[in-house]
Amino acid sequence: MIGKLIIKIRKCDAPIVAGLDPNLSLIPEKILDNAFSGFGETPKGAAEAVWEFNRAIIEALADVIPAVKPQIAMYEQLGLDGLEVFRRTVNYCRKKELIVIGDVKRGDIGSTSEAYARAHLGSVEIGSSSFVPFGEDFATVNPWFGTDGIKPFTDVCAKEDKGIFVLVKTSNPSGGEFQDLLVDGRPVYEYVAEKVNEWGAALMEGDYSNVGCVVGATYPEVGERLRALMPHAFILVPGYGAQGAKGSDIKGYFNKDGLGAIVNSSRGIIGAWKSDRYASFGPKRFDEAARQACLDMKEDINSNK
Amino acid sequence: MIGKLIIKIRKCDAPIVAGLDPNLSLIPEKILDNAFSGFGETPKGAAEAVWEFNRAIIEALADVIPAVKPQIAMYEQLGLDGLEVFRRTVNYCRKKELIVIGDVKRGDIGSTSEAYARAHLGSVEIGSSSFVPFGEDFATVNPWFGTDGIKPFTDVCAKEDKGIFVLVKTSNPSGGEFQDLLVDGRPVYEYVAEKVNEWGAALMEGDYSNVGCVVGATYPEVGERLRALMPHAFILVPGYGAQGAKGSDIKGYFNKDGLGAIVNSSRGIIGAWKSDRYASFGPKRFDEAARQACLDMKEDINSNK
Repeated sequence: MIGKLIIKIRKCDAPIVAGLDPNLSLIPEKILDNAFSGFGETPKGAAEAVWEFNRAIIEALADVIPAVKPQIAMYEQLGLDGLEVFRRTVNYCRKKELIVIGDVKRGDIGSTSEAYARAHLGSVEIGSSSFVPFGEDFATVNPWFGTDGIKPFTDVCAKEDKGIFVLVKTSNPSGGEFQDLLVDGRPVYEYVAEKVNEWGAALMEGDYSNVGCVVGATYPEVGERLRALMPHAFILVPGYGAQGAKGSDIKGYFNKDGLGAIVNSSRGIIGAWKSDRYASFGPKRFDEAARQACLDMKEDINSNK
Repeated sequence: MIGKLIIKIRKCDAPIVAGLDPNLSLIPEKILDNAFSGFGETPKGAAEAVWEFNRAIIEALADVIPAVKPQIAMYEQLGLDGLEVFRRTVNYCRKKELIVIGDVKRGDIGSTSEAYARAHLGSVEIGSSSFVPFGEDFATVNPWFGTDGIKPFTDVCAKEDKGIFVLVKTSNPSGGEFQDLLVDGRPVYEYVAEKVNEWGAALMEGDYSNVGCVVGATYPEVGERLRALMPHAFILVPGYGAQGAKGSDIKGYFNKDGLGAIVNSSRGIIGAWKSDRYASFGPKRFDEAARQACLDMKEDINSNK
C-alpha cells in the first residue's frame, strides 16, 4: 500500500493529506439547514450534513491530493449515524481513488488488536462469507502495548497489502510528558522509533515500509532526528496550519529522494472558507476554498523541500 | 460514579467485572444457527447472535456482580451492526443496574479526545437538542498523549458524574517494552501513575477518585507498588483467569478497606461453558456456567484478600 501512496504523491506532486474531521462548526449553515429540515435536529441530520460537506470536499480535492485522513472520533460522537457516514466517506474516497488513512489510533492487547485490525484494515469471516467492516487503506496505531499490540495489525497489512502509522511523537503540547522522558539519555519516542524499524522490516515495498510513523510538525528538530533514525518509515506529519507549523518547519521530515513524509492539514483545508485568507470564497464555495488551500499548501511545502 | 461502583461492589460483595467480549467462537452453535437463519451469514446475523448471547449472560449475572466491561473492538469488527449491538448492550446493562465500563482505550490530542469523551461518556449538542451517543459509565483511556489528551475526559467526568481508567501497566507480555523503560531508575508506568494522581485530585468521591487506572494482574509485585503510589485510584485489573492470574496474585491490589480494585475476567466468565471445569453445564446452560464462574471467582478473590 505504501507503494500506491508514493505513486499518488508523485502524480499529484503533493505530499499532502487532507484531514476529514468535520465538526459541525466547520459546515456552512445552508448544508446544516438542509440536512436538519430533511432529518430533524438529530444525529441522522447532523451525519447527513457531514456527508454532504465531505462529498463536496472530496470532489474538489480528488485530483490535487493523494490521500485523505478521516478522524473517526468526529464520526463516533454522532453515534451509529456518524459511523455510517464514516464508512460511506471511506467508500466514496476509494471510488475517487484517494488513499484513505483511517485516523483511529487504536491499540490493545493482542487478541483485541486483532479485532481492531480486522475492523479497519481487514475482513471478518462470518460463517462461510467474508465481510469488510470499514475498509481503510492505512490506520494510525497507538504503541503503548508494545509488539504484541502491533503484530495483529502488521499481520493484516501483510495479508491485505495495507499499512499503519505508529504514534511515535505526537504534535500536542503535552505529548512530551511520557514520550520525551529520558532513558539512558535518549527519549522514550526513540525507543518507539527503533521498534517501528523492527516491525516494518518484513513489510518493505521498495525503499519504504508499510509500517510508517506519526511525528508532529511542531518539533522540527525532533522530526529531523527521527527521519534519520527511521530511514524506511514514511512519516505522517500532523500539526501543519491550524496547529502552527509551516512548510519551512517540515523540510527535515523528507528524505533526499524528496519522499518519506506526508503532511496533514485538517481545519486549514476543510475549514479554509472560515479563515481570513480564503474569506472571499464565502460559505457557498467552501469546497473551492479547500482546493485552493491545498494548492497553496503544496506550494509552501514543495518550495521549502 | 466511583461512589456508585463502590456501593454496587459492597452490595454484591464481589469486586468483579465481567468482560463482554463475545467473539463468535464463544457463542453456542444453537444461538448462531438461529441468528443466521433469521438474518443470513451477515454482519447483522452475527451481531444478533452476539446480542442474544449477551442478553442471557447479563440476565444471569445482574444480581451477582456489580459491573460489566464490553470490549468495543469485538463489536467494531462487525461494523455498524456490531456497534448497534454494543449500544443495545450498554443500554440493557444500565436498565439491569449494572455499571458499564466501556473498554474503548481511546485517546488523542485535546480537540479529538473531546469528541471521544462526548461519544462514550457525554452528550452531543445538535442544534437545540442533545444526544447521548453510547452512554457508558466509565471508559478506559490511553495515556500516550499526556495531560491534554486526558483533560477532555476528566472535564466530561466532572460534568456528567462519570469515570475513567487510565492504562498504567497493561497485562500483555510486551506491555513492558515502553511502560517498563527506566527513567532515573523508575519505570515509565510510575510517571503515568503520578499523573493519574494529579488528574484525579479534583474528582474525588469519598476516598476514591473518578480517575482510576488499569494495572494487569500478571505482575503482582508491580500491582502492590502501584497500589501504594496511587492510594485514591481504583484499579481495574485485567489478566485474571484466561490470562493466567489467580486470586492470590491480586491480594496486593486492594487497600486496607478491602476496596480499591475491581478484577476483570472475560473468557473465564462468558466462555466458562467451553472449559473443562464447567463442561457439565453444556452449551444450553452457558449462562448458568457464567454465573457459577462469577461465584467461584468471588470466592477465590475474597478468600485471598
